[in-house]
Amino acid sequence: MLEFTHIGDVTSDELDRMRAVYEPLAESVRALVDATIRTEVDADEVAAVKAEIDAATARLRAKQIDGAFGVRYTSDGESMAWGNPVVGVGNPIAPPVVIRRDDAGRVYTDFEMGAPYEGPPGHVHGGISALVLDHVLGEAATDGTMPRFTGTITMRYLRPTRLGRLHAEAQTDRVEGVKTFVVGHLADDEGITVEAEGVFITPKWARGEGE
Amino acid sequence: MLEFTHIGDVTSDELDRMRAVYEPLAESVRALVDATIRTEVDADEVAAVKAEIDAATARLRAKQIDGAFGVRYTSDGESMAWGNPVVGVGNPIAPPVVIRRDDAGRVYTDFEMGAPYEGPPGHVHGGISALVLDHVLGEAATDGTMPRFTGTITMRYLRPTRLGRLHAEAQTDRVEGVKTFVVGHLADDEGITVEAEGVFITPKWARGEGE
Repeated sequence: MLEFTHIGDVTSDELDRMRAVYEPLAESVRALVDATIRTEVDADEVAAVKAEIDAATARLRAKQIDGAFGVRYTSDGESMAWGNPVVGVGNPIAPPVVIRRDDAGRVYTDFEMGAPYEGPPGHVHGGISALVLDHVLGEAATDGTMPRFTGTITMRYLRPTRLGRLHAEAQTDRVEGVKTFVVGHLADDEGITVEAEGVFITPKWARGEGE
Repeated sequence: MLEFTHIGDVTSDELDRMRAVYEPLAESVRALVDATIRTEVDADEVAAVKAEIDAATARLRAKQIDGAFGVRYTSDGESMAWGNPVVGVGNPIAPPVVIRRDDAGRVYTDFEMGAPYEGPPGHVHGGISALVLDHVLGEAATDGTMPRFTGTITMRYLRPTRLGRLHAEAQTDRVEGVKTFVVGHLADDEGITVEAEGVFITPKWARGEGE
């Protein structure tokens, strides 16, 4: 059973204040990740920078949560998936992707991917495409209240995806009982590169009446 | 056409020396990524640490390659996929996974995943499982000389994968012309959590003799 933490005493206003503190930190670390991969400064400079980074890490660890971030909810029911590797504003691994939804239930996102996401030279790692599509299809499968998890997902790679501006989208094709069938794709500036289809399942513990 | 850079004047010895410089930097940034997600220090301390990180990034960017890392080869034919988001020792996003191969052609890896890879609370993001499996299946599909890219890949999620020690493995099931069929799985400490099968394709430009 998964534990979704409820933070009863945090309001949406307080959440905004916390976000204003932690989101810029993650953005800075995101830039550092990119610089770490691309730097060509010499060994002495790398050693000096490394020492600074270790000191920064120690300062952040002076007070930290036990384990991973989890998914938390405020007293207003707002979700904080800040640690998520796709959408998490507090996770330097995440691009992060901002999920949008149109009136027809289509979920879409436009985002940028550079050096940290590279597989074949100049192109997105096939598994990174799968990471983003899994998440976007999962968002399309959920109506925002009922958690749904991936049952199966299939990716068809039409051609390599160029690094740079990317677009992903997905929508529910049909629902059959606890199964939600979703289709979607990833595209670069020249069109669709990866097609995806997934079957998402409502977990047993979420099928009854709420808590 | 993808460009695989040949670095004619770098020997394996020099590569080891470069790795001794850049790998510890990536390790430090990896720890910083984890600390960034989990920190609870106050706004002033976060702002001070952020300023230090921005300064570190600027120092690394003083001399950096144009664009992403690419995949490079030394004069000895050794591959440097240091920027890769799964196996790249120079990429703080990568766990990094160390790929091993047994005599029967089975590819496997044991690795650890913590806070940066979390989807459902305490568990690995389904797309992160797909990222690792795509890569491990791709390694099983290649014989080490011939590049192969994912054609299609299907993941079956049996149950959520716990964060912590993980194991992934894959092996070629059969080869039919330019198509290589591969199967594999991901497991946590209680057994298999995700099953995967993929069809990998030898790209047209790599099918002929030499360049």
